[in-house]
Amino acid sequence: MTFTTPRAAVILIGNEILSGKTQDKNLSYLGIELASIGIRVERALVIRDETETIARAVNECRQAYDYVFTTGGIGPTHDDITSASVAVAFGVELIEDPEALRRLTSRYGGEVTPARRKMAQVPAGARLIDNDISQAPGFQLENVFVLAGIPEIARAMFESLKPELTGGPAIHSLSIDAFLSEGQIASALGEIDAEFPRVDVGSYPFMREGRFGVNVVARSTELSDVEAVIDRVEALMKELGASPVRRQT
Amino acid sequence: MTFTTPRAAVILIGNEILSGKTQDKNLSYLGIELASIGIRVERALVIRDETETIARAVNECRQAYDYVFTTGGIGPTHDDITSASVAVAFGVELIEDPEALRRLTSRYGGEVTPARRKMAQVPAGARLIDNDISQAPGFQLENVFVLAGIPEIARAMFESLKPELTGGPAIHSLSIDAFLSEGQIASALGEIDAEFPRVDVGSYPFMREGRFGVNVVARSTELSDVEAVIDRVEALMKELGASPVRRQT
Repeated sequence: MTFTTPRAAVILIGNEILSGKTQDKNLSYLGIELASIGIRVERALVIRDETETIARAVNECRQAYDYVFTTGGIGPTHDDITSASVAVAFGVELIEDPEALRRLTSRYGGEVTPARRKMAQVPAGARLIDNDISQAPGFQLENVFVLAGIPEIARAMFESLKPELTGGPAIHSLSIDAFLSEGQIASALGEIDAEFPRVDVGSYPFMREGRFGVNVVARSTELSDVEAVIDRVEALMKELGASPVRRQT
Repeated sequence: MTFTTPRAAVILIGNEILSGKTQDKNLSYLGIELASIGIRVERALVIRDETETIARAVNECRQAYDYVFTTGGIGPTHDDITSASVAVAFGVELIEDPEALRRLTSRYGGEVTPARRKMAQVPAGARLIDNDISQAPGFQLENVFVLAGIPEIARAMFESLKPELTGGPAIHSLSIDAFLSEGQIASALGEIDAEFPRVDVGSYPFMREGRFGVNVVARSTELSDVEAVIDRVEALMKELGASPVRRQT
């Protein structure tokens, strides 16, 4: 990993993720998409719908990371307080954006109720992020990108802003797995990891159909190093009598 | 929600969750299980396999929350550094626990390689958490509970320690959903939420088969209030011509 890889934080906002009611899908999506353009997600937070909690998390992350992405809490209901909380974080007013209102009107016509109209409110100075699916926009303020919680809409928003993000060299990733126990490869794998300082080598045990297996992932901006690591791990796994399977990740 | 509900933080440790390579399943499991015994998960962090990062997260959370649960990073490989990092957080030594070693020996016999033997190391003063599946134990130190990352093993460990956790009154949860847009119910739902201060009323939009719907969740230690909220929301949804479906969550 070179020093030019920008670092991102993701803030998932919503009590439902913490209660277990909702299985988040946005973090893995953002992790994969950002890596593909050379941005590494270094931290994620899952926090409650509380103004002070959201504002503090946003402020901590926007100072510490190059990019911050939030998901959730920009809808019309009483628990949708992300926009107001981001305004608090930046110390700016929450204003009604005329273009956002125009988009909502184009979708809902005369049915832009006061609750829906709330979705036209953004912190002063924010730039809208397009939402092709339901029009209600996300927004960007400095290095903070505020996306919807519904995965389909979060994805549409991310797709629309992706061309504007500046990443480092793409992060290449290959993986290989086999029905072996981690303990069988741990020591040799540690040596391979030490030999390739530019590669993140991760080892992830799994259980499938009652059997233990291990998945080894190599990630780096240097594709040749990634391939060399996976070749070495493949040979190691074969020596142990396993039938490893390589995967593009 | 009464003031007697203990508050928990969950720390998910592992680069693979941040890169999107692995979809975490432990947070929703812990959220549901802890709520069932009256403990509320208030925050989750997803962090990289880095000693200082892990130690700082553990220290911040153990001071701010009644319970802290970590998952991941207690296996035999070079990137399994959770136990050592928790020792750093507490300022204690990492020691080999004889009982943990006995369990590993009972599983692996003569094949307790140095890498596997690492799984017998815990911070001084830790109490082991049983692992019925692969023997390598988790551990508890004060209010910090260190669990495996593999979901099946994290669950087995949690089940074994659950009887020892002291929760508040159980948190009851009911939900109801309908194919309505959030904007149609937002204003009335806000009024219902304001009327029941002891209930957390959450509104979660979804897309299913190309249609928008909304799921309303009521959570409280007071079951009668939860039921009253859901009755009111059901009536509201029916007034709007929808066919709401109630769910136990």
